[in-house]
Amino acid sequence: MSALRTGKLFGVGVGPGDPELMTFKAARALADADVIAHFAKAGSASHSRTIAAAHLRQGVIELPLHYPVTTELPKCSNDYRHALGNFYDDAAAKIAAHIEAGCAVVVICEGDPLFYGSYMHLHARLASRFPAEIIAGVTGMSGCWSAAGMPIAQGDDVFTVLPATLPEAELARRLADSDAAVVMKVGQHLPKLRRALATSGRLQCAIYVERGTMANAKTMALAAKPDDEAPYFAIVLVPGWEERP
Amino acid sequence: MSALRTGKLFGVGVGPGDPELMTFKAARALADADVIAHFAKAGSASHSRTIAAAHLRQGVIELPLHYPVTTELPKCSNDYRHALGNFYDDAAAKIAAHIEAGCAVVVICEGDPLFYGSYMHLHARLASRFPAEIIAGVTGMSGCWSAAGMPIAQGDDVFTVLPATLPEAELARRLADSDAAVVMKVGQHLPKLRRALATSGRLQCAIYVERGTMANAKTMALAAKPDDEAPYFAIVLVPGWEERP
Repeated sequence: MSALRTGKLFGVGVGPGDPELMTFKAARALADADVIAHFAKAGSASHSRTIAAAHLRQGVIELPLHYPVTTELPKCSNDYRHALGNFYDDAAAKIAAHIEAGCAVVVICEGDPLFYGSYMHLHARLASRFPAEIIAGVTGMSGCWSAAGMPIAQGDDVFTVLPATLPEAELARRLADSDAAVVMKVGQHLPKLRRALATSGRLQCAIYVERGTMANAKTMALAAKPDDEAPYFAIVLVPGWEERP
Repeated sequence: MSALRTGKLFGVGVGPGDPELMTFKAARALADADVIAHFAKAGSASHSRTIAAAHLRQGVIELPLHYPVTTELPKCSNDYRHALGNFYDDAAAKIAAHIEAGCAVVVICEGDPLFYGSYMHLHARLASRFPAEIIAGVTGMSGCWSAAGMPIAQGDDVFTVLPATLPEAELARRLADSDAAVVMKVGQHLPKLRRALATSGRLQCAIYVERGTMANAKTMALAAKPDDEAPYFAIVLVPGWEERP
């Protein structure tokens, strides 16, 4: 920490899980950081910190940001949004104090910081006040289709990322309307997603991926998966590129 | 090159342009490679080789794969497809010969190997015959929205990648039907894309990005871009996440 230099915010992608899928640029930002912030569920270790652990400088200040326990609140409720909004406000205020003191604050993010990442909530609150730099990372979905060895999109393919939370009819419509798709947040929505894939004619080519870039990854044809149990972060890949030359 | 070990194919993503956005895993694959293959336009240096240059082992065998000059053929013609198909067949045969000789052959790819990459044509021809491993990379689009500091998609956003080659009405329909979008291969299609963005109500938030992760990157609000000149690889970002908490 040096009061002589200007503080700065860094949103740093550390990739999908395998520490080797971090970039040199991310490692350098970690080595130069005064403060490392990371999101985690209350009571859990931060995934992003686990990925980046080997690159944390000894003596660096750590700022763990624990999501509020709001599982008892429905996700679409105003109370849930309010609790989360307060949490991000508070996290941003803590980071702002370090930046004002001249620190380089690195927020480490699984995957890519600006693609469905929690960092975005801090960026929206801080990037207009302080210098901010984003270091892109390998996304979770790239990690998954690479681990599965499955070409996903090519040429003039239309590629879509869909949350499995969508209503069944909308999922089916969008799956039929895309050359290639990735469905995220599968979890409890797998029975509905399976029906939507069948309706759209895409079930036979769909691939189910669990813990995509972990050592214990599970990849299989969805049609061959015997049950509808899936963790929240499981994803389903629907490959495009039908006319392979 | 060692006849004692089993040959293997590697599709290795080297990221969007900044050599620092390569992963450790990619660098290790390059250091261990017997043969490095890279695509390039006839008469041009390979972009992927330029990105990876610092990691090429001295004495490594290089296998440049020069696209056939087919600009005189219309892209949708059978002759064009035939010429390209022959080119990929020939490239795959050359790589197969090295793998059969026990070599680790690394095909270096800009961005991510299985996301709109030429490597996929080799993978489709070789991955059923030989052991193949994909090393995911940071995509060009991640590099662009990171350089622009623009949060692209969050929460339950539907995110779509569209080629600017689509007809105007289809572009407008899909832009209106997505929370967030990236439009690729803008080039000569910019006037049409601009109209489609206006029709879909997304022109005011669209960001134009040229040479996203190069030192001479150009990023601006599309509405403020005074002309419709754009290189082929320019992209347009349409950010989602309208309800930022």
